[in-house]
Amino acid sequence: MSFADHIRACNNYERGRVVPLVAGGRRIGRLRRDNAAALSRFARVFAVEPERVRLVAAGDADTVSAAVDEVVEALVVERQVPKWRNETFDVMARWGEPPLFRLDRGAVPFFGVRAYGVHLNGYRFDGGRLHLWIGRRAPDKRIAPDKLDNIVAGGIGNGHGVVATLYKEAEEEGGIPAALVERAQPVGAVSYLMETELGIRDDVLFVYDLELPADFTPKNSDGEIVHFELMPADEVVERVRATDDFKFNVNLVILDFAMRHGLIPVDDPEYLDVATGLCRPLD
Amino acid sequence: MSFADHIRACNNYERGRVVPLVAGGRRIGRLRRDNAAALSRFARVFAVEPERVRLVAAGDADTVSAAVDEVVEALVVERQVPKWRNETFDVMARWGEPPLFRLDRGAVPFFGVRAYGVHLNGYRFDGGRLHLWIGRRAPDKRIAPDKLDNIVAGGIGNGHGVVATLYKEAEEEGGIPAALVERAQPVGAVSYLMETELGIRDDVLFVYDLELPADFTPKNSDGEIVHFELMPADEVVERVRATDDFKFNVNLVILDFAMRHGLIPVDDPEYLDVATGLCRPLD
Repeated sequence: MSFADHIRACNNYERGRVVPLVAGGRRIGRLRRDNAAALSRFARVFAVEPERVRLVAAGDADTVSAAVDEVVEALVVERQVPKWRNETFDVMARWGEPPLFRLDRGAVPFFGVRAYGVHLNGYRFDGGRLHLWIGRRAPDKRIAPDKLDNIVAGGIGNGHGVVATLYKEAEEEGGIPAALVERAQPVGAVSYLMETELGIRDDVLFVYDLELPADFTPKNSDGEIVHFELMPADEVVERVRATDDFKFNVNLVILDFAMRHGLIPVDDPEYLDVATGLCRPLD
Repeated sequence: MSFADHIRACNNYERGRVVPLVAGGRRIGRLRRDNAAALSRFARVFAVEPERVRLVAAGDADTVSAAVDEVVEALVVERQVPKWRNETFDVMARWGEPPLFRLDRGAVPFFGVRAYGVHLNGYRFDGGRLHLWIGRRAPDKRIAPDKLDNIVAGGIGNGHGVVATLYKEAEEEGGIPAALVERAQPVGAVSYLMETELGIRDDVLFVYDLELPADFTPKNSDGEIVHFELMPADEVVERVRATDDFKFNVNLVILDFAMRHGLIPVDDPEYLDVATGLCRPLD
């Protein structure tokens, strides 16, 4: 294992394997060719062309969402999509624009729609040594069960903003009160483009750092994290390098933290792989 | 002007306008097609093929450097290359490998060889407000005369490492003593791919942050900076957004600093442009 292995795993996307999903002439997703072909039966919603798929369902966000959802239901029956039923993501060409429709979270990789999340690095200095609060994901999580995670991480559901998601997840996942969360600093984003069994993950993670006081201990209340541990940050970084213990994208968030906090020396043979590998330019 | 304008200016590279310069089957540079054509006369050194140029001069680094330098001298006579004569850069396919040859700094963009530099953000908190030391470049600089700059910045010349360049430039350019420089933290890299009049700049800047004490004032001794000013960091960021006052690549280094230090709020419409636009993945 190496730092670059984790970066490569999250960036295994190959352009030739997908066609764009377009709406109004702009790309809103990336469909693996087998997924694109599976949409040809739904001609009232999608027009499948050789080198692209067009969203043809028209109307306001509610109308288009309902039309797309009928397609998703059919794909769920065929077990091509694992529907979550409790969370939808907004779909738009660019962050900040009004959503064209809402999509069940389980169907997001099928359509290769860009998904946004928030990750918080919770840290503190203990005896002058930088430490990170690390959580262990519950064994019943759909994605990456039992893997290690940031103290707070979550997807940005429809209608929620970055900051609202940060506060909500900080409280539910880590028991961090709002008075502490407001000290969190936005420090950038991690982005990657990854093919999985289900399709394409085009993910953008808004990253925050928060220095936590010595008397704070995180406490999970939504059942998503079973255990928290305060680990020396340099040991976290070496564990990222040597193992697959962390959730795939958490490796990248921790490497970003490590880079920004001077934990990776310039003579590390992977220094430039890490420094230039964590924020794939959005196109 | 906008943040994204500065990022675009440094990433105006178009793949179709260049051919790779290869050695031993690996790319070591990118030649604009007109520059590639100009090399066809030097068949003992370069083999110009339709879609690539091969380095054919063989031997140790000294031998190849001498052969390439003859070509550079001829191009200088024709005013295709502005030779610097006082500084050479190492040429290799990947940072950390032994150099294949040394190249006059003035010829680096002609061949589109990747160039490495070091930039230091010198900052301090004054009355709780983050400030940055900003220098003004001398009016006789070849590149970006009179523009604003980081407190310390310099190219990594042949045989020098990142750390050695940092100490050398910190002393010459900013008068920062070694005892202070050793507190500097490596915090990542800024990378971009830019076409200029001369050719292609494939630049990687190792970025350091250094918190400077209140009783320190920078002092230039190499004539490259005429004046230093301690500016509130938020005003520096707005000046980057609104003007062309800073050297082209310094805009990117400052945006990286601003992002890492929480100076750009997540609701800034350009937040993701900045967060994902400063470190072009190396290929």
